[in-house]
Amino acid sequence: MKLQLATWPDIRDYLETCDAILIPIGSTEQHGPTGLVGTDAICPEHIAGGMAEQGVLVAPTLSIGMAQHHLAFPGSITLRPTTLMAVIRDVVTSLASQGFRRFLFFNGHGGNIATVQAAFADIYADASLAGGESGLVLELFNWFMGPRMGEISKELFGDAEGWHATPSEISLTWDAYPNAQRQATLEPKRAPKGPIRDAHDYRQRFADGRIGSEPDLASAETGARLYQAGLEDAMEVWRKLLEN
Amino acid sequence: MKLQLATWPDIRDYLETCDAILIPIGSTEQHGPTGLVGTDAICPEHIAGGMAEQGVLVAPTLSIGMAQHHLAFPGSITLRPTTLMAVIRDVVTSLASQGFRRFLFFNGHGGNIATVQAAFADIYADASLAGGESGLVLELFNWFMGPRMGEISKELFGDAEGWHATPSEISLTWDAYPNAQRQATLEPKRAPKGPIRDAHDYRQRFADGRIGSEPDLASAETGARLYQAGLEDAMEVWRKLLEN
Amino acid sequence: MKLQLATWPDIRDYLETCDAILIPIGSTEQHGPTGLVGTDAICPEHIAGGMAEQGVLVAPTLSIGMAQHHLAFPGSITLRPTTLMAVIRDVVTSLASQGFRRFLFFNGHGGNIATVQAAFADIYADASLAGGESGLVLELFNWFMGPRMGEISKELFGDAEGWHATPSEISLTWDAYPNAQRQATLEPKRAPKGPIRDAHDYRQRFADGRIGSEPDLASAETGARLYQAGLEDAMEVWRKLLEN
Amino acid sequence: MKLQLATWPDIRDYLETCDAILIPIGSTEQHGPTGLVGTDAICPEHIAGGMAEQGVLVAPTLSIGMAQHHLAFPGSITLRPTTLMAVIRDVVTSLASQGFRRFLFFNGHGGNIATVQAAFADIYADASLAGGESGLVLELFNWFMGPRMGEISKELFGDAEGWHATPSEISLTWDAYPNAQRQATLEPKRAPKGPIRDAHDYRQRFADGRIGSEPDLASAETGARLYQAGLEDAMEVWRKLLEN
Amino acid sequence: MKLQLATWPDIRDYLETCDAILIPIGSTEQHGPTGLVGTDAICPEHIAGGMAEQGVLVAPTLSIGMAQHHLAFPGSITLRPTTLMAVIRDVVTSLASQGFRRFLFFNGHGGNIATVQAAFADIYADASLAGGESGLVLELFNWFMGPRMGEISKELFGDAEGWHATPSEISLTWDAYPNAQRQATLEPKRAPKGPIRDAHDYRQRFADGRIGSEPDLASAETGARLYQAGLEDAMEVWRKLLEN
Amino acid sequence: MKLQLATWPDIRDYLETCDAILIPIGSTEQHGPTGLVGTDAICPEHIAGGMAEQGVLVAPTLSIGMAQHHLAFPGSITLRPTTLMAVIRDVVTSLASQGFRRFLFFNGHGGNIATVQAAFADIYADASLAGGESGLVLELFNWFMGPRMGEISKELFGDAEGWHATPSEISLTWDAYPNAQRQATLEPKRAPKGPIRDAHDYRQRFADGRIGSEPDLASAETGARLYQAGLEDAMEVWRKLLEN
Repeated sequence: MKLQLATWPDIRDYLETCDAILIPIGSTEQHGPTGLVGTDAICPEHIAGGMAEQGVLVAPTLSIGMAQHHLAFPGSITLRPTTLMAVIRDVVTSLASQGFRRFLFFNGHGGNIATVQAAFADIYADASLAGGESGLVLELFNWFMGPRMGEISKELFGDAEGWHATPSEISLTWDAYPNAQRQATLEPKRAPKGPIRDAHDYRQRFADGRIGSEPDLASAETGARLYQAGLEDAMEVWRKLLEN
Repeated sequence: MKLQLATWPDIRDYLETCDAILIPIGSTEQHGPTGLVGTDAICPEHIAGGMAEQGVLVAPTLSIGMAQHHLAFPGSITLRPTTLMAVIRDVVTSLASQGFRRFLFFNGHGGNIATVQAAFADIYADASLAGGESGLVLELFNWFMGPRMGEISKELFGDAEGWHATPSEISLTWDAYPNAQRQATLEPKRAPKGPIRDAHDYRQRFADGRIGSEPDLASAETGARLYQAGLEDAMEVWRKLLEN
Repeated sequence: MKLQLATWPDIRDYLETCDAILIPIGSTEQHGPTGLVGTDAICPEHIAGGMAEQGVLVAPTLSIGMAQHHLAFPGSITLRPTTLMAVIRDVVTSLASQGFRRFLFFNGHGGNIATVQAAFADIYADASLAGGESGLVLELFNWFMGPRMGEISKELFGDAEGWHATPSEISLTWDAYPNAQRQATLEPKRAPKGPIRDAHDYRQRFADGRIGSEPDLASAETGARLYQAGLEDAMEVWRKLLEN
Repeated sequence: MKLQLATWPDIRDYLETCDAILIPIGSTEQHGPTGLVGTDAICPEHIAGGMAEQGVLVAPTLSIGMAQHHLAFPGSITLRPTTLMAVIRDVVTSLASQGFRRFLFFNGHGGNIATVQAAFADIYADASLAGGESGLVLELFNWFMGPRMGEISKELFGDAEGWHATPSEISLTWDAYPNAQRQATLEPKRAPKGPIRDAHDYRQRFADGRIGSEPDLASAETGARLYQAGLEDAMEVWRKLLEN
Repeated sequence: MKLQLATWPDIRDYLETCDAILIPIGSTEQHGPTGLVGTDAICPEHIAGGMAEQGVLVAPTLSIGMAQHHLAFPGSITLRPTTLMAVIRDVVTSLASQGFRRFLFFNGHGGNIATVQAAFADIYADASLAGGESGLVLELFNWFMGPRMGEISKELFGDAEGWHATPSEISLTWDAYPNAQRQATLEPKRAPKGPIRDAHDYRQRFADGRIGSEPDLASAETGARLYQAGLEDAMEVWRKLLEN
Repeated sequence: MKLQLATWPDIRDYLETCDAILIPIGSTEQHGPTGLVGTDAICPEHIAGGMAEQGVLVAPTLSIGMAQHHLAFPGSITLRPTTLMAVIRDVVTSLASQGFRRFLFFNGHGGNIATVQAAFADIYADASLAGGESGLVLELFNWFMGPRMGEISKELFGDAEGWHATPSEISLTWDAYPNAQRQATLEPKRAPKGPIRDAHDYRQRFADGRIGSEPDLASAETGARLYQAGLEDAMEVWRKLLEN
């Protein structure tokens, strides 16, 4: 069930048997010459769509994440870490006031991880500093780190997967938006690697936006396979959360 | 052009001739017994979809708004005003660093208006307090306040339009999501009116979530008509922004 | 009763029968070549003085508001929206800790409206996010939007009232401070209109600070009439608040 | 010249020869059984009125200060230290954008001192952390610590002056508002002394709100004398600031 | 060279040839029945002491970190994630204003990692959002994740190392403070594992504070060996930073 | 007992008979040509070491304080006042959640005083604004203002003590770190005096960093004497706190 397409009585009924919710979180940032700006939001949203059909309650995607390092490429948008932390706090607190207790943030962007975890600690700290008990279970799952997903990536792409604008994530967006497939001559074929600092430094190091990847290996067919793998990976995590 | 489905070179090229962007903003909140929780995000996103086809650059929808008064109804989520202001600041500042200057926030939720305007003032204040010049044009347009839209609402619903969970917005969501049509016996037929305070007070006053409306007057056909009207209203505002 | 001129036992006694308080809020900003920098604070403070004589408890005027757009004119002072929101929160929370429940912010500046409403939402959100009940009634009344006031302005000034440095507000300040009457040749007679953005933009558009007004139509006599009208408008709002 | 009663061209002209401004700052808090809630704002405002007549540019009084410890007495209002710091920052930054460089905060409340000094450091820190130069001179003067003032207090009241709701400050308010003179039987005659902590603790220690004082020694005559002394003390500080 | 034991002319001279600084960061939190509350600060500080002797400029240890989950054990202190981020920002900004460009945060606490990385992003974001260039290199090195360190831990403790109150960290503190060696009967010998949430949940799961560890395997001799390994690991990271 | 060298069961036991803790707080800032950058942290930490031997529970030193005015001298680090306030709030709140009620901040830096006091008010304000009771006792003691300390300083240095980089504080650091003794020709012998503003202004006024002092009068012997005096002064304050 998608929260946006439900009514409030639907959610009231849902809460009678389940206090868990899935919150897709992504980013709006350059993904190289051929990748979509929305890649990191589209990927978890796409898989979450399948989860919703299996009864998971899916919140609207938080489409803008922490992407300060991409800002030198037009179309990239960031929230400051402190802003994203406030957003996560408000979302959790809103739903907790209604009885939700277990929150699975389903993430599509490596750059969000530290901030999301800091946000969780900040929320827990309210109870901890008050000598109380939050009753909350806040978890993060990155779709690109699921085991089934990893096997396919390793098998098909090996080191050509890289770290940013990867053939896996681009394939997955093509499964979601078949018309969005784009090709370009990538030069060099394999993008360079290196550390991530500010946006100016990033653009100096990674001229077309990619890090270590060969996104021209992407295909819609692989995307369909990754979708299935990602759905199974994520449903497994969800079920574990419910058993908790 | 939807930003999420574009590549960064697309946006680089777009910026050569245009420095304006449309940012849909909505809310995730109860809309009475039959309205969708996502109504206020779906409506501007739906119309923005049509605008994107006419060449408008459309950012991802900010789906969560300022909805503290709805929190006593399950499924509603709010950002605090200060959080929403930080989000708007970061979005504008990110895009301004790349050359964007004109921002049209295309809004679907009355409860966002004050906060969005306060956010604009806060952004302008950076330049004003520094004795400088921002060069920014920040505008807000509420789809439900366009003239063509207003005429249809007046003609079809008159006073039954009400203020929350209105037949107009519900019709429009049914144009976007035909399968999401829901019916329920509304009692009383016309919801009460009153002031908006905190969530507890709201639920006491407005037992099923509606304010002053008769959403059972909604229909998908009306939704289609409203969509056209809304698209024309919004395109008119967009064109004025470009002429500016 | 003016809070500043009362003792704490006076307020303790007042709270036994009434939990409402009036808080004048204005701005410190340019009002054209002849208008006083304090106009927006003086107007509500002046009327509130009359209300205090009729038994209304009147807090000290919040003289500095949200006026970022006026900063390019010397003598203008702004609070950032977030600062003004914090001020309003602290004032309300202080008094609520003592039993006050109903707060009427009596406003003299259009630029404050969005921020004050965002501040109210922020205060209500504390209770809403906690799943609790604030018991608070937070209202805003703009003296210049009262019905009696509007009639006089329409009758005497029509379109020459304009939006900033209006003959109405200037007349009212002259009723409060007869010695502060100033004249100057206004060129053009009727000030231009336009959008409000940052301070630099404002000064480019509105060379002498006025928007759409002809303040040389002001007079102390009109000020006296407006004072009476404003007092009746405001007392009506106050009485409604008490009946609530 | 009072800023509120000036026009912006007046301030533009003033800035041609002087970049200094006086900002009265007080508090809204209980002052014992007979003292006015507005005492700490009234005192510096009263003296500043005399300074304005001698050509000093006087901003509107910041009437609400840091008074958390008084909140258990009805009518007391506090700004949190962080809020007051934001207010001071915005006021200074606004005026600095127009060319003001020297700011004399003229204070009537001991409880404001630490926060005002922390605010100054916070403003200076902007330049210091940027490796730059603010050009600002931020000073605090407490009217009750001027030498002439101190002599009179010592001569007339000695130890009966105490620390809160002192005969000096009450006398001075009676010079400003002769009709506000109040008497009550004070029991004990001399209020107790002790540390200042939170509001609950304060009310336990200081049952009627006074600390160490005998405010029944106040008189309007003494107020008139203190006014003259305070005016001379403050003008001396102002002149030193100008010579700086 | 330890910053605290240097004079400012020493640092001026140092900056002529090197723009890098090491900042030990730890935590003040329970470390099981026998581990010291200061363990996570002592460990990096101890190794940093050796680095200082080899010419590394070492800032004072940030002894309090993000430890909200430990608060249910007396003596534990946390900074909120947002507070720790502000501290890191201020430290970096202070030193950057003097010419420092490379910062190595030398960390002793897993719970700090997300927050420190979020802090780095927040600092970089200043430049990125301004379309500028920070010139900063911000790096984090956890002493317990160095390769030499890992080999010893694996060899001596294997799975008994665990995650909190590990024999490695306790051994290292005993090398630093030989008199602080403590023994206790640990029951169960191997502490349980599990997720980390709020402080109440933590204490329920991990009754004596340890996670997955057998700290009674610690010894001062092992501590001496770990110290050497840690020093070599850290110096290697430092040298790489300088070559950068 | 030093908190860092204790275990959590030690602190649990301590809390059974005492709810007080000593928190040394200093600064990391230039202290003239010969003084150590860590002087203001070393001094209270040194004395606190003696207190710990007499049974006082001593928290880790907060080594970085509010030192914005020193930033133009390399090696100086500041926390913004708002950051330091957040640190103090988190430290107090953490320990209060475990039963601590009395906190003695033992301070070595004049520049911290206003901020620490503002922080105390901010913490108390939580309870005061909620109409509640904190039960907290927050006190500040500056080692350099103790009576025994003052007598020695007066006797040995008189006016040559000055305000910054004083012979007293430098002597005390030499008692703590005998190897850190430094000499330099000071020119002028007695440093100038003046107001403290931003870092640029400070460096203009105080070319070598000192204010009004002759630190070449320092000696390790005097340091030993001052240590004893400071220990007695501080123990007296501690005992008063316990009797409270």
